[in-house]
Amino acid sequence: METRARVLIDCDDAKGLVYKISKVFFEKELNIDSNREFVDKETGRFFMRTVVTGIFEPDELSSELKGIAPEADIRVIVPKPKKIVLMATKESHALGDILIRHADGELDAKIECVIANHDTLETLVRRFDIPFFCIPADGMDREEHEEKVMELIDTFEFDFIVLAKYMRILTSKFVKAYEKKIINIHHSFLPAFIGANPYKQAHERGVKIIGATAHFVTDDLDEGPIIAQDVIPVNHRMEWRDMQRAGRDVEKVVLSRALSYVLNDRVFVHGNKTIVF
Amino acid sequence: METRARVLIDCDDAKGLVYKISKVFFEKELNIDSNREFVDKETGRFFMRTVVTGIFEPDELSSELKGIAPEADIRVIVPKPKKIVLMATKESHALGDILIRHADGELDAKIECVIANHDTLETLVRRFDIPFFCIPADGMDREEHEEKVMELIDTFEFDFIVLAKYMRILTSKFVKAYEKKIINIHHSFLPAFIGANPYKQAHERGVKIIGATAHFVTDDLDEGPIIAQDVIPVNHRMEWRDMQRAGRDVEKVVLSRALSYVLNDRVFVHGNKTIVF
Amino acid sequence: METRARVLIDCDDAKGLVYKISKVFFEKELNIDSNREFVDKETGRFFMRTVVTGIFEPDELSSELKGIAPEADIRVIVPKPKKIVLMATKESHALGDILIRHADGELDAKIECVIANHDTLETLVRRFDIPFFCIPADGMDREEHEEKVMELIDTFEFDFIVLAKYMRILTSKFVKAYEKKIINIHHSFLPAFIGANPYKQAHERGVKIIGATAHFVTDDLDEGPIIAQDVIPVNHRMEWRDMQRAGRDVEKVVLSRALSYVLNDRVFVHGNKTIVF
Amino acid sequence: METRARVLIDCDDAKGLVYKISKVFFEKELNIDSNREFVDKETGRFFMRTVVTGIFEPDELSSELKGIAPEADIRVIVPKPKKIVLMATKESHALGDILIRHADGELDAKIECVIANHDTLETLVRRFDIPFFCIPADGMDREEHEEKVMELIDTFEFDFIVLAKYMRILTSKFVKAYEKKIINIHHSFLPAFIGANPYKQAHERGVKIIGATAHFVTDDLDEGPIIAQDVIPVNHRMEWRDMQRAGRDVEKVVLSRALSYVLNDRVFVHGNKTIVF
Repeated sequence: METRARVLIDCDDAKGLVYKISKVFFEKELNIDSNREFVDKETGRFFMRTVVTGIFEPDELSSELKGIAPEADIRVIVPKPKKIVLMATKESHALGDILIRHADGELDAKIECVIANHDTLETLVRRFDIPFFCIPADGMDREEHEEKVMELIDTFEFDFIVLAKYMRILTSKFVKAYEKKIINIHHSFLPAFIGANPYKQAHERGVKIIGATAHFVTDDLDEGPIIAQDVIPVNHRMEWRDMQRAGRDVEKVVLSRALSYVLNDRVFVHGNKTIVF
Repeated sequence: METRARVLIDCDDAKGLVYKISKVFFEKELNIDSNREFVDKETGRFFMRTVVTGIFEPDELSSELKGIAPEADIRVIVPKPKKIVLMATKESHALGDILIRHADGELDAKIECVIANHDTLETLVRRFDIPFFCIPADGMDREEHEEKVMELIDTFEFDFIVLAKYMRILTSKFVKAYEKKIINIHHSFLPAFIGANPYKQAHERGVKIIGATAHFVTDDLDEGPIIAQDVIPVNHRMEWRDMQRAGRDVEKVVLSRALSYVLNDRVFVHGNKTIVF
Repeated sequence: METRARVLIDCDDAKGLVYKISKVFFEKELNIDSNREFVDKETGRFFMRTVVTGIFEPDELSSELKGIAPEADIRVIVPKPKKIVLMATKESHALGDILIRHADGELDAKIECVIANHDTLETLVRRFDIPFFCIPADGMDREEHEEKVMELIDTFEFDFIVLAKYMRILTSKFVKAYEKKIINIHHSFLPAFIGANPYKQAHERGVKIIGATAHFVTDDLDEGPIIAQDVIPVNHRMEWRDMQRAGRDVEKVVLSRALSYVLNDRVFVHGNKTIVF
Repeated sequence: METRARVLIDCDDAKGLVYKISKVFFEKELNIDSNREFVDKETGRFFMRTVVTGIFEPDELSSELKGIAPEADIRVIVPKPKKIVLMATKESHALGDILIRHADGELDAKIECVIANHDTLETLVRRFDIPFFCIPADGMDREEHEEKVMELIDTFEFDFIVLAKYMRILTSKFVKAYEKKIINIHHSFLPAFIGANPYKQAHERGVKIIGATAHFVTDDLDEGPIIAQDVIPVNHRMEWRDMQRAGRDVEKVVLSRALSYVLNDRVFVHGNKTIVF
C-alpha cells in the first residue's frame, strides 16, 4: 500500500546533498509530490521539506537518509492530526477562531483541552465539547500558579501548546520544559511595542499601521522565532480601544496561519529565526 | 473673481465651533468643496480642513474666523507650489522618485536645490536642471559640517526640507532651526529598528514584514510625528541586502506620499502625532 | 438624562447645509462626538453622519432637521442592537466568525436565526443556542424553495439578512422584498470572477492576488453596492482548493467588517456605490 | 576560473528527474547557490531554476542536461545585462521609474531606446542620454503605424520590449513577432476592468481597492500570463482622477517588480500562467 510522508532534513550544508538525498528517493522509486530547499549561506545550514509517496517503510527511509548525513536532524512524518493544548485568558477571538476551524475539520489537529486563568471562556469552550480547565492565579505567586498549570499540562500528550491570548508571563522553567513547542500570538508587529498593552503604545506613538506576530516562545519575552506576521492600517480617528478591536482580526488570522504552518510541518526553527516552506 | 482656499483650523474644542465656523462660510456665501474635522477627545483639541470657493479676501476670512476662537491657529491658504530643499547622501531611489514627479508636474512644489554630503548624485540631479550642492563632511566634526549646511540652506526660501535618505544624524540645533519643517524617510517600520541599518536588524530578528516610515524630524532621533507608513512581506530566502533592495520601493512610495500630504496642507501636527486629512 | 444618537442625513447638496444643521445642534446644546460629511460632486448629493449627545427628543431633533431640507432622508438613531437573520449553506467559516463575535458581545446585533438549505451547519449553530432552520431545496424549483424561505423569514423582525456563504442564487422577487437589507459575501475580488467558482477561475487565469467582496444584494447578480473588499497574495504553487482555503480567511474578515459597518449605521447606499464613514 | 550560471529547466515531469539533474551537478562538482522547483500536477510539467557556481563550460553543462530529458527546454545562462526597448506614450511615471533604476545601476539591463507615439516624454528621456524616437500615429491607420514602429524596433537587438504605459492596442502581427518578449503594465487589477479607462470603470463600480497588473502580451488584449500584481485601498472620496493618481504608484512598482523578475530569469511561462521563482 502507498505511503505518503513528509521528509524534513535540517543539517550542515555540503556539496552533493541534494544528489545523495534524491538518489535515495529514486532508488526507492518514490514520487516527489513537492519539494522545498533552502541553504542559509551565513551559517552554512541546509533545510529541506519533501513530500514523497510510494511503497516504503518510514523508519527505513529515515535511517537510509541518516546514512548520508549522520548528524543531521531527519524526520520522516506520516501525517496524522497533531495534539494541541490551548491556553487563554478572557478574550475569545483567537481561541474562538481555532475552535471554529477545529469543529469544521479545517485544522489538522486534535484539541486536548483549553486551560485558562479565568473562567470567562468556559461557556464558549464547552459549546464545542472540549475539556476546559480554569486555574485561577488569585492569591498565588507566579511559580505556584505555573506549577499547577504544568501539573495539568503534563497529564496530556501533545505536540504544541498554543497561547491564544494567554495574558500571563511565563517563567523560564515553563518555557524550557516545552521548548520549541509553545506558540504565542503577540498583539503587535514585533519588535515594535514589546511588552504590555501594545495598542496603547501604538496609539501614543501615532503609528499608521498596526500588526500581530505569531512566534515560538523562548526565554526572552516576545523575542522568540517569528512564524507569521500581518498588519492593518490605522488612523488618527482611532482611539487605542478601536485599534485593539481592529487588531483582533489580525491576531486571529495570524495565529491560525502560524498554527496551520506548524501542523503541516512547514516550519524549521534556525537560531532565532524560522524557515517557513 | 473666484478664489479657492484651504482653511486650516487647529484649536481647543468648544461647543458650537462647527456652527460658528460654518456661519462665517455661509454669510460670505462660500461653497464648501470638501470638509474634514476631527476632535481629539483625550486632549480636547479640534482640527478642521475645509476647501472653500467664492469671492472673498483670504485675510479677511482669516480674521473673521479668528474672532470665533481668538487663540486658535488659523490658516487660510490659497494654494501655490511650496518651495522645498532636498537633502540626500548616495542613494538615488527616494530622491529620483521626487525628481521624476517634479519633472512631471505631479508634485505641487518647486525644488530649490539638492544638498548632499557626497557627490554621487550630482549627475542625476543635474539631469533635471536642479542646483546641486555637495558639502562633504570629511575632516569636519558634526557641528562644523552642519554649520556649513545651514549657511547654505539659509540662502534659500523654503517651506520644507525633505531628507531623501540623508544618512547623517542631525544635531538638536539644526532640528530646532527648522521645526516642523523637516520630513525624513526612515528605512524601517518605526518604532521597530530605530537607528542604524534597520534592514540588517530586521534580517537578524527574522521578521516576515518590513516597512518604511515618513515622519517629521524632532530632537529625538526617529521619534518625530509619523506622517505615513507602509510595509511589504519578506521571507527567509532574503539576505539583508535583498531586504534593503525590496525596502527601497516602500521608502520612495511612502516618502512621496507623505510629501504629497504636506504639500496639500493635509497634515496637522499634534504633540507627537499627526492628523492626516 | 443624556441621550446619544447617530444623525444620518442624505439629501441634495445646497449652500449653507452644514451651517443650518450645525445651528440646530448648537441651539439644542448638543455635543458633537464625531462628524463625517461627504458631497458627491457628480450627483450633487450630500451625506452626513454625526454622533451627538445631549438632552433632546430624537423625534423632535429629526423634525427640526427635516425643516431644513424637506425632502432629505434624515434618520436620528439611538443605538440599540440590530436584529439579523443569517443564511448559509454548508461552509462554516463566515457563519462561525459571526457566531463567535456574537457570543463575545462584539457584534452590536441580535441573531434571530440561521436559515440553511442543508443541515450541515446545524450542530455548529445549536452550540450557540441560536435557532436553526433547514429548508432543503431538493425536488423543488427555485421559486418554490424561495417561497418557503420567505415564509419563514417573514415570521421574524429584522434589520438585515446576512448571506454567510449562502450558495444559491436569489430571485428578483426575493431581492426586491428585502431591498437594501441583504448583505452578501462574494468569494472574489469583484468585479473580477463574477459567477460560480471564482477560485477556480482565478487559478485558471493565473492571478497573483485573490480577494473577497461584501456587498448589498441587488437584482443584478454580484453587482450590488460594494461595502468592503480585501485581498491576499497567492502564487503558482497553489491549486484552486488552496486558494479557496486561503480565501476563506479574507471572506470572513471582509463580511464581518462590512457587517460591523452597517450595524453601526456607517454605510450610505448611493446608486450603485456606498459611502462608508 | 569560476563560472556562475542560472540553469533553467522546463520539461515533462518524470520520476528521478531531480536525482538525474543533481547527479550532473554533483559530478561536475558544482556548488548549488539556490534552487527552486515546481511541478504543475495538472499538466505534469516540471520547472526548475538553479544557480550553480564552479568550473564548467555552460554549453557542455547544457548538453549533458539535455541528455537526461531530450525534449526539455534547458537554458544555462551566464548573467549579463539584458537589452530592452521601452515603449511609452505621454505618462512619465512608469517610464521614469525604469529610467531612474537604470541610471542607478539597479536594473540589470541596458536600455536600447525609448519609442513613443508622442513627443511629450522626449525631454525626460534625453535627460538620461537614452535615444528617444517619436513615431506619431496621426493620419495613419494602425497597421501603417505599427509597421513603422516594427521597422525601427528591428534595427535593435533586444531581449524584451517593455510597454511602460504605451496606450495603443497592438495588432496580432506585432504580438506574434515578439512572442513572450513583450511585457505590459495594465492599470487595473486584471481581470477586473479589462479595456479602456479602468480607473473610470473602477470609480463607477464603487470598488474599495484598485490595482495594477504586469503581464506578457499575447494576442488576447489584457489576457496574457500575469507576472505581478498589487493593489491599494480607495474610498468614496476619490474621484476617478484621484484613483488614477494613486494607481500610478502601484503601476510603476508592479512593472518594475515584474521587470526585475524577467531580467533575473525568474519567470517561466506555462500556458496562460507564470511560475515566478
